[in-house]
Amino acid sequence: MSSSFQPLNPDFDAVVRDSFARQPFMSEVGARIALLEPGICEIHVDMRKGLTQQHGFFHGGLVTAITDSAAGYASYSLYPENSTVLTVDLNVKFLKPAQGSLLRARAEVVKTGKTLYISRADAFAEEGEASNHCLTGLFSMMCLPGKPDHINFGRNDSAA
Amino acid sequence: MSSSFQPLNPDFDAVVRDSFARQPFMSEVGARIALLEPGICEIHVDMRKGLTQQHGFFHGGLVTAITDSAAGYASYSLYPENSTVLTVDLNVKFLKPAQGSLLRARAEVVKTGKTLYISRADAFAEEGEASNHCLTGLFSMMCLPGKPDHINFGRNDSAA
Amino acid sequence: MSSSFQPLNPDFDAVVRDSFARQPFMSEVGARIALLEPGICEIHVDMRKGLTQQHGFFHGGLVTAITDSAAGYASYSLYPENSTVLTVDLNVKFLKPAQGSLLRARAEVVKTGKTLYISRADAFAEEGEASNHCLTGLFSMMCLPGKPDHINFGRNDSAA
Amino acid sequence: MSSSFQPLNPDFDAVVRDSFARQPFMSEVGARIALLEPGICEIHVDMRKGLTQQHGFFHGGLVTAITDSAAGYASYSLYPENSTVLTVDLNVKFLKPAQGSLLRARAEVVKTGKTLYISRADAFAEEGEASNHCLTGLFSMMCLPGKPDHINFGRNDSAA
Repeated sequence: MSSSFQPLNPDFDAVVRDSFARQPFMSEVGARIALLEPGICEIHVDMRKGLTQQHGFFHGGLVTAITDSAAGYASYSLYPENSTVLTVDLNVKFLKPAQGSLLRARAEVVKTGKTLYISRADAFAEEGEASNHCLTGLFSMMCLPGKPDHINFGRNDSAA
Repeated sequence: MSSSFQPLNPDFDAVVRDSFARQPFMSEVGARIALLEPGICEIHVDMRKGLTQQHGFFHGGLVTAITDSAAGYASYSLYPENSTVLTVDLNVKFLKPAQGSLLRARAEVVKTGKTLYISRADAFAEEGEASNHCLTGLFSMMCLPGKPDHINFGRNDSAA
Repeated sequence: MSSSFQPLNPDFDAVVRDSFARQPFMSEVGARIALLEPGICEIHVDMRKGLTQQHGFFHGGLVTAITDSAAGYASYSLYPENSTVLTVDLNVKFLKPAQGSLLRARAEVVKTGKTLYISRADAFAEEGEASNHCLTGLFSMMCLPGKPDHINFGRNDSAA
Repeated sequence: MSSSFQPLNPDFDAVVRDSFARQPFMSEVGARIALLEPGICEIHVDMRKGLTQQHGFFHGGLVTAITDSAAGYASYSLYPENSTVLTVDLNVKFLKPAQGSLLRARAEVVKTGKTLYISRADAFAEEGEASNHCLTGLFSMMCLPGKPDHINFGRNDSAA
């Protein structure tokens, strides 16, 4: 479970958690960072009715959003100081309905680059000892150096 | 804007809206069906802080979730009676930050099949006359005939 | 069918065709550029047995390769001088078997950026008046400015 | 490296190799099955100029085609008798240029279903002891039971 990546930013842990804390949508859905190592991030969400689809499972869109966030912060943990992160691409395959009381998304960076970071990520819906592997996906994150994470972009900035 | 698909279920409009209304996550985020024709669905969401990421835009995961929902209901509008819909695969490319006061996701079915329905979908974040094309994607939905949409699946049912 | 993009390189037509001509795999399979406008590229391939899979259709991998090439050159037509192109990501959905005597792949750029160019592309297998829409996909191309297209990269260069 | 899947067809090895041998495109490019276990398939291709792009690497489209084939036969190894396989969806991320004298694509099935089989696959371009991890991807294969693999489909059959 331990990572082989060397973070460029020695403060990566604080930087990632600070960025995560500034995402209102993550607190809206009750998401929390459960594990953070260089290039690895795991995010947990507890089941509540407001997060479900018509069959009572975690909504697939929410599962995707949480997994995307895990992939984003796995990448962001490896970025240089004074940079920010944007998802440019995500590919997700749903393997099983996300049935369970805990949603667990885990992402690991596969490749770093000057601009693009590629992650592999999975989500699991868990109930007691049962773990439903509900999603596997690939995510591409862009590293925007020199763009601080804590202020808004101007209107005409593009994602890439 | 009018569709060339013939719906199998004459009650498709009521069936889709009823299913949408039973997705607690959609009401949680304030999503509403703004357009529904056979094979086409458009969903709108108003900006509020709880739906944003750290730069003040609609969260990319939320944008994906809403677009996925539009693709799901575009497909579901063409399904036979007494069936349900599950996303099996989504591919999303983010084109611009989702900056605006209204999020508009629009999906159109590209291909119907016995089992799989393929849709193309886009999302736009709009502010006055400005429209930011923030996402384009491809979605695969599975048609599960004989599985009613309004009851829960059993634990071991798989998505496919 | 005419494009709304303004090419950065006035010699884009010659530059694209020269690069295409230096791809041995394209001539190996008999591919030719059938249409080239700024941000749009169409590539054609005639059926022959060596390009088929076990059912006698164009092999899906070949269809993907040709469509990827169309997307690459649609993007490359918009690049600045003295740059090269690499695919970073492709998402392809197969809609129908690629049955026909002519394979036609057509790509259009959806978005340009500093680094990434996103295209939408489709492939059709045609026989007389019948046209089988066999593939739809999304492609991300990287623009590598200052990297000439006609010499080899060093071993450790990464795609991104 | 050994697989945990139980094949439904005890003759899976002969059935897969027979289908592979009937793909003219695979012999055209010199592809061979280097490893086959239930749910796992590895395909190798030797470098030759006809398989390259403009920088002298294996063409990305060819790398995708070979990896797709590995994913298809990993899935097909788990299918019941008297069935055939079609790719319905592929998502590929290119990690590095495919530089080397041997291309090695390896796929493993992640999930089996009634209709869809999901695989994860990677490709490596190798030169002596150096191995360039050039592609990672996710693939969805459809199982078509009752459709023999060795005869052509009719014109109007769809992939799904």
